[in-house]
Amino acid sequence: MQQIIKQLKGIVGPDKVATAKEDLYCYSYDATFQRFMPDAVVKPQARDQVAAIVKLANQNGIPVYPRGAGTGLSGGSLPVMGGIALVLTDMHRILEIDRENLLAVAQPGVVTAELHRAAENKGLFYPPDPASSDVCTIGGNIAEGAGGPRGLKYGVTRDYVLGLELVTPTGEVVRTGGKTIKNVSGYDLTRLLVGSEGTLGIITEATLKLIPRPQAVRTLLAVYGDLLKAGESIVRISTSGIVPATMEIMDRLTIQCVSRHSPGDLPQDAEAVLIIEVDGTESAVKEEAQIVARVCRETGAEDVVVAVEPGEREQIWRARKAISSALVQIKPTKISEDATVPRSKIPEMIRRLQQIREKYEINLVIFGHAGDGNLHPNIITDENDPEEMKRVEAATEEIFTTAISLGGTLSGEHGIGVLKAPFMKMEFSQPELSLMRRIKSALDPRGILNPGKIFQEPSHER
Amino acid sequence: MQQIIKQLKGIVGPDKVATAKEDLYCYSYDATFQRFMPDAVVKPQARDQVAAIVKLANQNGIPVYPRGAGTGLSGGSLPVMGGIALVLTDMHRILEIDRENLLAVAQPGVVTAELHRAAENKGLFYPPDPASSDVCTIGGNIAEGAGGPRGLKYGVTRDYVLGLELVTPTGEVVRTGGKTIKNVSGYDLTRLLVGSEGTLGIITEATLKLIPRPQAVRTLLAVYGDLLKAGESIVRISTSGIVPATMEIMDRLTIQCVSRHSPGDLPQDAEAVLIIEVDGTESAVKEEAQIVARVCRETGAEDVVVAVEPGEREQIWRARKAISSALVQIKPTKISEDATVPRSKIPEMIRRLQQIREKYEINLVIFGHAGDGNLHPNIITDENDPEEMKRVEAATEEIFTTAISLGGTLSGEHGIGVLKAPFMKMEFSQPELSLMRRIKSALDPRGILNPGKIFQEPSHER
Repeated sequence: MQQIIKQLKGIVGPDKVATAKEDLYCYSYDATFQRFMPDAVVKPQARDQVAAIVKLANQNGIPVYPRGAGTGLSGGSLPVMGGIALVLTDMHRILEIDRENLLAVAQPGVVTAELHRAAENKGLFYPPDPASSDVCTIGGNIAEGAGGPRGLKYGVTRDYVLGLELVTPTGEVVRTGGKTIKNVSGYDLTRLLVGSEGTLGIITEATLKLIPRPQAVRTLLAVYGDLLKAGESIVRISTSGIVPATMEIMDRLTIQCVSRHSPGDLPQDAEAVLIIEVDGTESAVKEEAQIVARVCRETGAEDVVVAVEPGEREQIWRARKAISSALVQIKPTKISEDATVPRSKIPEMIRRLQQIREKYEINLVIFGHAGDGNLHPNIITDENDPEEMKRVEAATEEIFTTAISLGGTLSGEHGIGVLKAPFMKMEFSQPELSLMRRIKSALDPRGILNPGKIFQEPSHER
Repeated sequence: MQQIIKQLKGIVGPDKVATAKEDLYCYSYDATFQRFMPDAVVKPQARDQVAAIVKLANQNGIPVYPRGAGTGLSGGSLPVMGGIALVLTDMHRILEIDRENLLAVAQPGVVTAELHRAAENKGLFYPPDPASSDVCTIGGNIAEGAGGPRGLKYGVTRDYVLGLELVTPTGEVVRTGGKTIKNVSGYDLTRLLVGSEGTLGIITEATLKLIPRPQAVRTLLAVYGDLLKAGESIVRISTSGIVPATMEIMDRLTIQCVSRHSPGDLPQDAEAVLIIEVDGTESAVKEEAQIVARVCRETGAEDVVVAVEPGEREQIWRARKAISSALVQIKPTKISEDATVPRSKIPEMIRRLQQIREKYEINLVIFGHAGDGNLHPNIITDENDPEEMKRVEAATEEIFTTAISLGGTLSGEHGIGVLKAPFMKMEFSQPELSLMRRIKSALDPRGILNPGKIFQEPSHER
């Protein structure tokens, strides 16, 4: 490894390679509770440096772990087998906001919220909005297939990636897709790369679709005395002909946590709330907000507030955004799942999650992007309590089997990473996994890019 | 082959296998001008029959050419190396229209227009709308990545495929994706399959996203004395904050052809017309139609008609839909290209196409989905005139190089097939093509699925 480190310093400069234990420790974790030490942390400044690093690693069979801000919730960037933590945060320039073609060109280290602002400054809109958007990066969003609350109306990161520049596992620079909305030349490598968690290539530039910014927004807060009635509202709104921009749900436990953290934003004794946002033209949102409010009341909401002014709207969203920091005040370890079901199964999924909470006696809170079937059951626990962690593990597995039995999937927007790799067999048959492994082997014959992710062990399948 | 035909009859029944020359001839062509005879035509009735056929073909190294209605414009379904023409039109059932989850489940042989009607009957909407939607099939649409006029606002087929059931090149039945909007478990095989032109798998079932049907529609006809001014309107509307459902362009030659075919629908002496449609809520479309009309006038439209009533709207669309049949009255052979450029390059692309028309002295008409940069330059010629066909070939090549030099792509929505395979090298570098070939080889090691398509010769690359 000493020889390799010397060569890495030759590629990026000595100050962009770190090997001191304290530096390595900083890149040994992400937003999960797992830790793995890399052998070296390398911060490339340009595409060609990334290519040279990967070529070197490929020649020597050294694992390379691409990494953005390390906010991942499935362990996608963890250096589980040592090797190189390739930190892409120094490549953080927005290269273009193109109003005529409604697109942006960005380097992988651009923080998602910066792209939001840059687009808004030109009257445009980049809808994907993961909860960590103030820190997470576009490269990580694409690699993990990030989503957020606006999936329902606007889709997810996948739907906004028009083209990529990437370094292949053998160190070549290639381009996929481009600046056109329509493109069917050859295989859709762009979408194959989205959500491939850095196992098939390292993104060095992305061309992203933008849309015109909606003129007007209304935010509704619907309050329920019964969680299942909130679930019914979601299904009824979905068939009303209106597609809200967001439909977020929070259960009693979530509401109580948030209320302790920032009192006054939510009705403390509610069993559930929905935060529903409609956007579009001024006249359309007025009409749609009225219909949504009516449907909520008809399906059992005890109170519906329609917020028009930015201040009122902000107050509602403040409660939603406070969830993560509020939850970790119960216990220090927060395991955020993203098992996703078809929208109509939301009431049933909620019922089952309540049973799982009781069965395993755990702090399980339910909130998330209910409108697109993507709940976030969060388990609040303490990783230093081995007895409770056992029950947490069993509960997590039951959450996965439940989602899959309802026609859902292991992961809606967090990726498989290391945490869910053992469960891939639940969702996919042997031939299905074999297809994926054969693609991995075809593109990365030495298995150096992000090994240990998605698949439980490195593949030698042909 | 005799032994194989016996086995095929064993799988699907003797009446579903044809080998008589007149039967083979019926499946030797598509909507291009090329012809290739298969050795057998096989019509499976169910997924397991497809799997058994592919398994048999794989064991014996026999090419299999999946085929829907044969309306393809790039030769994607042509049996260029003999073997089995696998006709999927008997698998034509809509299995589900699910209002709660806003999705449809369909077999590959379902005609696109039937899916449109089935969705509309439940107040829903399946936006992809290729010109051949009255005959073409969902399986073919997915395989070729079909588009249509609504790409601008609603995206293309790719954006509506949530999940697939398919038979792999080695004859296994696998499922990709599912019924959830969000899904990032493992590699996105669903989108890898979309647009892969039957070279990576045969689609036996598709789960398709639907959306609520827009309440109201306005259709605008804008008339220009200068083609380039129409191009400017397109760019200006794109940056106005409004996303029309369609923005179609027709040039002078197209207008004249259509006017001879169905007089009175279009102003005969116009240099260009745009057909722009906005949809949404009643109040939104009213507002948007006014803005679009104003922008058209400001950028040089001589006249703008806003059609509200279904009858008026139909009259405008009748002209657009008459193009194909009107054009072949000039000469019998119609070569429809779909080279696509970034939206802002539309005026420049139009200018270059006019130069190409003059340079090669050919009947080149310009129309298409201008709003998403996807023009359809059509060359009207006679395949029996070898001298003219030479000029046509040279012009076609220049259309491709022009589109690519403007940051565009060989194919926006027709696929590469056989016709554009020789030009893939223009758009992609060796490493880029190698990635695609390695995926093909990994999934189809014997190269039996639709050989000769996308890549110029079968690949043995590893």
